[in-house]
Amino acid sequence: MEETGPSPGTSAFNMPDWLIQFADQKQEFNKRPTKIGRRSLSRSISQSSTDSYSSAASYTDSSDDETSPRDKQQKNSKGSSDFCVKNIKQAEFGRREIEIAEQEMPALMALRKRAQGEKPLAGAKIVGCTHITAQTAVLIETLGALGAQCRWAACNIYSTLNEVAAALAESGVPVFSWKGESEDDFWWCIDRCVNVEGWQPNTILDDGGDLTHWIYKKYPNMFKKIKGIVEESVTGVHRLYQLSKAGKLCVPAMNVNDSVTKQKFDNLYCCRESILDGLKRTTDMMFGGKQVVVCGYGEVGKGCCAALKAMGSIVYVTEIDPICALQACMDGFRLVKLNEVIRQVDIVITCTGNKNVVTREHLDRMKNGCIVCNMGHSNTEIDVASLRTPELTWERVRSQVDHVIWPDGKRIVLLAEGRLLNLSCSTVPTFVLSITATTQALALIELYNAPEGRYKQDVYLLPKKMDEYVASLHLPTFDAHLTELSDEQAKYLGLNKNGPFKPNYYRCQI
Amino acid sequence: MEETGPSPGTSAFNMPDWLIQFADQKQEFNKRPTKIGRRSLSRSISQSSTDSYSSAASYTDSSDDETSPRDKQQKNSKGSSDFCVKNIKQAEFGRREIEIAEQEMPALMALRKRAQGEKPLAGAKIVGCTHITAQTAVLIETLGALGAQCRWAACNIYSTLNEVAAALAESGVPVFSWKGESEDDFWWCIDRCVNVEGWQPNTILDDGGDLTHWIYKKYPNMFKKIKGIVEESVTGVHRLYQLSKAGKLCVPAMNVNDSVTKQKFDNLYCCRESILDGLKRTTDMMFGGKQVVVCGYGEVGKGCCAALKAMGSIVYVTEIDPICALQACMDGFRLVKLNEVIRQVDIVITCTGNKNVVTREHLDRMKNGCIVCNMGHSNTEIDVASLRTPELTWERVRSQVDHVIWPDGKRIVLLAEGRLLNLSCSTVPTFVLSITATTQALALIELYNAPEGRYKQDVYLLPKKMDEYVASLHLPTFDAHLTELSDEQAKYLGLNKNGPFKPNYYRCQI
Amino acid sequence: MEETGPSPGTSAFNMPDWLIQFADQKQEFNKRPTKIGRRSLSRSISQSSTDSYSSAASYTDSSDDETSPRDKQQKNSKGSSDFCVKNIKQAEFGRREIEIAEQEMPALMALRKRAQGEKPLAGAKIVGCTHITAQTAVLIETLGALGAQCRWAACNIYSTLNEVAAALAESGVPVFSWKGESEDDFWWCIDRCVNVEGWQPNTILDDGGDLTHWIYKKYPNMFKKIKGIVEESVTGVHRLYQLSKAGKLCVPAMNVNDSVTKQKFDNLYCCRESILDGLKRTTDMMFGGKQVVVCGYGEVGKGCCAALKAMGSIVYVTEIDPICALQACMDGFRLVKLNEVIRQVDIVITCTGNKNVVTREHLDRMKNGCIVCNMGHSNTEIDVASLRTPELTWERVRSQVDHVIWPDGKRIVLLAEGRLLNLSCSTVPTFVLSITATTQALALIELYNAPEGRYKQDVYLLPKKMDEYVASLHLPTFDAHLTELSDEQAKYLGLNKNGPFKPNYYRCQI
Amino acid sequence: MEETGPSPGTSAFNMPDWLIQFADQKQEFNKRPTKIGRRSLSRSISQSSTDSYSSAASYTDSSDDETSPRDKQQKNSKGSSDFCVKNIKQAEFGRREIEIAEQEMPALMALRKRAQGEKPLAGAKIVGCTHITAQTAVLIETLGALGAQCRWAACNIYSTLNEVAAALAESGVPVFSWKGESEDDFWWCIDRCVNVEGWQPNTILDDGGDLTHWIYKKYPNMFKKIKGIVEESVTGVHRLYQLSKAGKLCVPAMNVNDSVTKQKFDNLYCCRESILDGLKRTTDMMFGGKQVVVCGYGEVGKGCCAALKAMGSIVYVTEIDPICALQACMDGFRLVKLNEVIRQVDIVITCTGNKNVVTREHLDRMKNGCIVCNMGHSNTEIDVASLRTPELTWERVRSQVDHVIWPDGKRIVLLAEGRLLNLSCSTVPTFVLSITATTQALALIELYNAPEGRYKQDVYLLPKKMDEYVASLHLPTFDAHLTELSDEQAKYLGLNKNGPFKPNYYRCQI
Repeated sequence: MEETGPSPGTSAFNMPDWLIQFADQKQEFNKRPTKIGRRSLSRSISQSSTDSYSSAASYTDSSDDETSPRDKQQKNSKGSSDFCVKNIKQAEFGRREIEIAEQEMPALMALRKRAQGEKPLAGAKIVGCTHITAQTAVLIETLGALGAQCRWAACNIYSTLNEVAAALAESGVPVFSWKGESEDDFWWCIDRCVNVEGWQPNTILDDGGDLTHWIYKKYPNMFKKIKGIVEESVTGVHRLYQLSKAGKLCVPAMNVNDSVTKQKFDNLYCCRESILDGLKRTTDMMFGGKQVVVCGYGEVGKGCCAALKAMGSIVYVTEIDPICALQACMDGFRLVKLNEVIRQVDIVITCTGNKNVVTREHLDRMKNGCIVCNMGHSNTEIDVASLRTPELTWERVRSQVDHVIWPDGKRIVLLAEGRLLNLSCSTVPTFVLSITATTQALALIELYNAPEGRYKQDVYLLPKKMDEYVASLHLPTFDAHLTELSDEQAKYLGLNKNGPFKPNYYRCQI
Repeated sequence: MEETGPSPGTSAFNMPDWLIQFADQKQEFNKRPTKIGRRSLSRSISQSSTDSYSSAASYTDSSDDETSPRDKQQKNSKGSSDFCVKNIKQAEFGRREIEIAEQEMPALMALRKRAQGEKPLAGAKIVGCTHITAQTAVLIETLGALGAQCRWAACNIYSTLNEVAAALAESGVPVFSWKGESEDDFWWCIDRCVNVEGWQPNTILDDGGDLTHWIYKKYPNMFKKIKGIVEESVTGVHRLYQLSKAGKLCVPAMNVNDSVTKQKFDNLYCCRESILDGLKRTTDMMFGGKQVVVCGYGEVGKGCCAALKAMGSIVYVTEIDPICALQACMDGFRLVKLNEVIRQVDIVITCTGNKNVVTREHLDRMKNGCIVCNMGHSNTEIDVASLRTPELTWERVRSQVDHVIWPDGKRIVLLAEGRLLNLSCSTVPTFVLSITATTQALALIELYNAPEGRYKQDVYLLPKKMDEYVASLHLPTFDAHLTELSDEQAKYLGLNKNGPFKPNYYRCQI
Repeated sequence: MEETGPSPGTSAFNMPDWLIQFADQKQEFNKRPTKIGRRSLSRSISQSSTDSYSSAASYTDSSDDETSPRDKQQKNSKGSSDFCVKNIKQAEFGRREIEIAEQEMPALMALRKRAQGEKPLAGAKIVGCTHITAQTAVLIETLGALGAQCRWAACNIYSTLNEVAAALAESGVPVFSWKGESEDDFWWCIDRCVNVEGWQPNTILDDGGDLTHWIYKKYPNMFKKIKGIVEESVTGVHRLYQLSKAGKLCVPAMNVNDSVTKQKFDNLYCCRESILDGLKRTTDMMFGGKQVVVCGYGEVGKGCCAALKAMGSIVYVTEIDPICALQACMDGFRLVKLNEVIRQVDIVITCTGNKNVVTREHLDRMKNGCIVCNMGHSNTEIDVASLRTPELTWERVRSQVDHVIWPDGKRIVLLAEGRLLNLSCSTVPTFVLSITATTQALALIELYNAPEGRYKQDVYLLPKKMDEYVASLHLPTFDAHLTELSDEQAKYLGLNKNGPFKPNYYRCQI
Repeated sequence: MEETGPSPGTSAFNMPDWLIQFADQKQEFNKRPTKIGRRSLSRSISQSSTDSYSSAASYTDSSDDETSPRDKQQKNSKGSSDFCVKNIKQAEFGRREIEIAEQEMPALMALRKRAQGEKPLAGAKIVGCTHITAQTAVLIETLGALGAQCRWAACNIYSTLNEVAAALAESGVPVFSWKGESEDDFWWCIDRCVNVEGWQPNTILDDGGDLTHWIYKKYPNMFKKIKGIVEESVTGVHRLYQLSKAGKLCVPAMNVNDSVTKQKFDNLYCCRESILDGLKRTTDMMFGGKQVVVCGYGEVGKGCCAALKAMGSIVYVTEIDPICALQACMDGFRLVKLNEVIRQVDIVITCTGNKNVVTREHLDRMKNGCIVCNMGHSNTEIDVASLRTPELTWERVRSQVDHVIWPDGKRIVLLAEGRLLNLSCSTVPTFVLSITATTQALALIELYNAPEGRYKQDVYLLPKKMDEYVASLHLPTFDAHLTELSDEQAKYLGLNKNGPFKPNYYRCQI
């Protein structure tokens, strides 16, 4: 009976009861174009892979060592040299960062504990391409604990924490990544993960789609043995849907970007905190009494507005969608057109997913000292290109902070050159990354263990039940106690006692 | 038959541009079972029709006139006696209430203005069965202004405002309704609306499904001329889906209960205010410092929690769904099982849609003076029946407030006998009813004007575009200014400049 | 004479330890003119005594009994006729209201329990003049339990709850009061309390100063035996300071109006809730999205602003004081002049303590439907008199709600005719009244037991330690646990372990 | 005629009207012991002068230049060498920081503009000892613009921003200060400011009292020509009150620490933001759902609690004072003893002003990963000394972040070694410093221009009117518009139209 039913909990892996029951349900997984499907993207190297990215930053990394890691001969303490990192000697510092991260990633640690007996990823050969940070290190080492062999590259040329990469290399993970790779380095690292004598990946974990793209281009035959792709980013998911639409997707893919739990955290909860953090770290400004306009009242905008209102800012909102607009009204924000307030506001924040929301004309009308930043997506929301004109002077006053100076002396404070403030100027809390990482791990387990035929050559959303499982794994952190339905109540509601509680069509919506 | 496209704005009615463009889109209307589909309801007379209901109440109604309206001979000032109300002489007071309501129902007034030239409901013969209040009077008179002939009965035996019914009768609407009908009166009134010499309805506006039920039972042939049913209530929608499932639905029906705008207001925004109002009016309690447990963290629970937190209460939450549970945690509420806090809380509020959430065992453990009320649905959430035992004394201390007294003297304060607090003990703001009424009016226009074949014998959700139109009609109340997409931006997002902005699968979700 | 020190806890009364230690401190009680001292008040009958006042209202009181209570012959069940109330038969209903109030007045109940052994008010003959409500009944009966004999009249001709007065009379308290007294009745009732054969008061509890005024005028010799006056109202305190200034105050008086705990509750905490309650009960309006201007950002204004902001209103503030103005800015409110926003707001609320804050000119410019109300003091803040002109039509639409209609049809919704909204249109939570009543009881104990010479013929503030004691008596309601200083910490801070923790100059300030 | 009237605005300085009128009022300035008076402090070098202090930090300062500035020969571009800083070449970078700060210090810039004609500090010779930051540089240069000659040293051996010191030196201010002074350097720098051939100070601006202490000790005769001391810190003010009490204060001193505006900002508004900032920068933690206990519910505690509640934390409060405790309850916080929650909380924050609030016993019982920090005062609140025992391991994981590790592996995350989190781990917004600096400047003007006899050898609070003036100077930043009293209203309130609006006894209280 297990043949057809999709189950992340095969007999090989001791999942909790309700995940096992889950195997008995005939689920129709959702297939849908994501909202990103609206945008047209075309790139050779992904845009996200070259976005500047500053997180907790490199702590010990003031070295003036200019030698390319590719030219260095390094061995870890066990004698292996199957890796390429900046400096293997930084491993100890990186290990400490990993240990700190482990404390805030309870769900992955719970999966490790559960896997002490059985190994749901035994035999899995995972090639991964993600940011290399303490949190992804916890994920990678968890995959290892679950039985997988992993090889890893970075999905962004700036975002690698060299110490963490060193710690991974020291512990035996073949990792190829350092901060400040060239584009050539970038593809070289990916290739070193994939193109290995006597080792072929059977699952892919990608963030942005560059790894998938590379295999498609260079080693298409490799897909014959690949059970599936787990993709985390908006961009990568978009590429997968394009492949699928074009009939070129030759393995199942799991879109974990649109899982409910991840979305809620990435947008509302995370941005609620990171807007404050990003503004403080760059400008040391006081929020109380400041006038702010937030463009867009989706989840990100809602988070930004709530946080700034709570800190005593006066917040205006712009929206195009009447339903979101009415929500802004009911939540106590004046709904305006940008032009109505642009002369008076102290801060402009974009959260629209749209382009050219803040134009040169708006920038010309802002008052002296106005801060402009982007919490939305990519770097299109503020028309930064329009500021690259001869009459304006740019002055870099701090890292990620530019003063753009008008001929009359007016200064606009532009943060992160219009790129994402939360990625560039604040850190993402480990707890949020824990949710993403747990979702990725469960998706890998599911794809790797799924009986043949459960998944076709298409893009799937994570089953609601697993989404709920990710959420439930994070409740103990808050000492939170879930109520269980009685049999009578479950019958009354027409629900299984163990979920899923959300209908399949449920999305995390705004 | 789909060629011309679905359009609420036929050429006969001058709708705004974007509603006209809307006609050009091929829409697939959503068909879905609502969550209420989980519950099994079976009734002869609908439960909702006998729920006690106290709103702004009858102001002038201290009459000791015991004569049944059915036995009275009354005429309005134009000489018509085609109505049956408590006392036609109360019309003037009711008119004033209607005028007050008009001020807070800007969207209907806008529709009336728009209809001065053309009449989109010309020829429509609408039979309606709803609560008879000042707000529904504004709806009924708007339908009249749009060209319709209406006949109306009450959907609840207690909820009629006699003065408003009198004002409608005085202005020429055949209305059959008074406060305190018997069950026999109830059906008699409905019958008087339907069973008329020389007049046959071609559209139905129902709230609870009793009118629909009556026509099915008594005058099934009438459906041949009926273009559609608009149903507003959870219960009525459930009945329609049951009919549909059983293949017995013989006309199209529009489920306006699940329209996004209505849901958001009925649940989150309305409950945020009515929980405070309902508790104050019944108990005059102070919220600051009180310990409260809210069972269920859906939209209703979220509204209750936010309001009480803002007033200085300490709020605990119970949940069965891990995703909602995690949201409660992130919003700053301790997630507990009811048993953990039942001894210490001052107030227990149910918002689950479930049954027996508060059991006799819980009630036995509550502390003296604990207030218990229900904001969820129907009257099932608190096991009130379990309190009807000999050792407990019930004492009615105020309208809608009972003290249930334990042998040791402990008193529990039970509000509205476990029925909905917000219906029984607070008033629903006119603005919220305006959204519902506008949605109903647009749905009627749509069904009445839809070309043959657009709608089958099925239950439909309001098209997103009309949902957004309802929202946009309410923005001017807040002096709110919507931003319009530029052509370039619309293209970038892959959207029509005029919406819809939400995908079809969009629901108002929690 | 100061040797033995001031102590509310004489040996006769078992007060908690720290109150006893309090006796050992040489305190200089504060003497100060209150801010009300700025206003000039002169009246024969106090203004407050004729203010319309609507609280929980009379529940059973639909009687058409027109006979004046003064003309009735009534006896309670014990045969006494030393009282004058509307209808002694309503006693049972009133008793239930008193019992309900007892549940929310934990501090008085704690004092009763403490007094089971000793009676700190044994021998006290208290004449009182306050509102006659369930809560004052709990106070009066507590004073009785502490050993006092009481006689009582109402301080307001409208505010008496007849059922409660009946219950007091039934239980043996000589109470002279009913709802709807004439001015002549008013003074007659007071006189019946004071002018008694064989009974002379030795302490006075007054609210508004009318009782004190009457004794001064009619029975000045009575003051020879009076140990002191406890006065609760702004107006009464003002009169006492005037007497003191004029050298005419012939007994000590305790100003309990300015006690810290009472002030904080009466203003910030109580208004935070009553602004919402008052607006809802009168207008059933929705707060979300409404634009509101609050005039004055003292404690009352802060409470109103916080509540409305939390409910989703957009709030503007006007202020004259730069320090309060800066606080409004930092709390996230736009600081404006009234003229700047008067055309756009939906609600105008005055909280200034000033006069003519809202002028006819402002009223002329308000938009149709604008709601105007006063939370500040008296009825001076809105220039209501300016609306009594021939071209404006007044229409009473509900109790406490007038529509004032301009020639062009514009309607302004005026609440409570400009009198205090919170007194007229909402109820004061019992818990707040509990704080006031406890403060009054402790002040009476203090004055009655103070050794001669501790208090001169002057107006005193409640000692901080007793203020803190009132607060501490209310903490158990919230299951709140106070931390105690260690000896080492107390020494470090230079404080007594048992308080007072506030310096003497501490006021509850804004 | 100016002889007797107190006026900060002599005829030589064009102050606004109401400041001039202020001269006509006979004011009794408040003399009071501050609450710090409760503590006994005795030091040779002030504790605050050696507190580690990390603000925006040194940006360009990665130099390995080990030469002591005292041994360097440096000249500014005008050839002067009357200064001692780390590196005069860093001046340009420092100047940019100063310019940025100027944008957020509108009140000082307004004073500069006002002083273009007249110089209220002409002839003033000010010696100053404060933190050397961009904001104090704006103050120093403002004093210069007002006519004063200044010499400056640092009040803390760590807090100097070398680039700013360089910029001041370059612009001609004799500044003696660098980051990382030894104690000997510290006093040497102060001495270089004071002990100058042919220049003697006539006013003192001190922060911590070390400069005042030095002059008392070394150059007591200098006080003959000194018109007064302006002192900003709690510690320095305490020392002044001690001197005054001992009869040793030989010049007037102005306590600007207790000015209302400054207090409100330093405590409530600033801490509301800096608690979040300090925690984020050190730990990157997520606030949502975290359990936090805040010890102390004064202004600082209120700010911390409000901010964390708004971010979704669950906050518990401990208090010793019943009045503050009741406020915590009414604001929605569970009032507990620390022991009740110590095992379950994720964060412990002290805001008491007390000592040993968090003891080793508490620390022993905290859960793994618990974060402990101090927002109160000094470094006494957490018993950090008790953690310096052999069985515990300390691990410095980041700047200002230590893991203290128990034998069983439990880690406590201690921030800033128990010193003030807001000083050590977050930046103080320029706007807050602007308020302090403006207060200092006005106090200097007042003392310098006061006619002889207005101030005795005592410690004074800033007159309320000047306090209000500081507030009003900051309102334009928020585009805030103050309402003015009409003559009639002012008369009604018994106030001067131009203030002061607060009574003299007004304090910023909690």
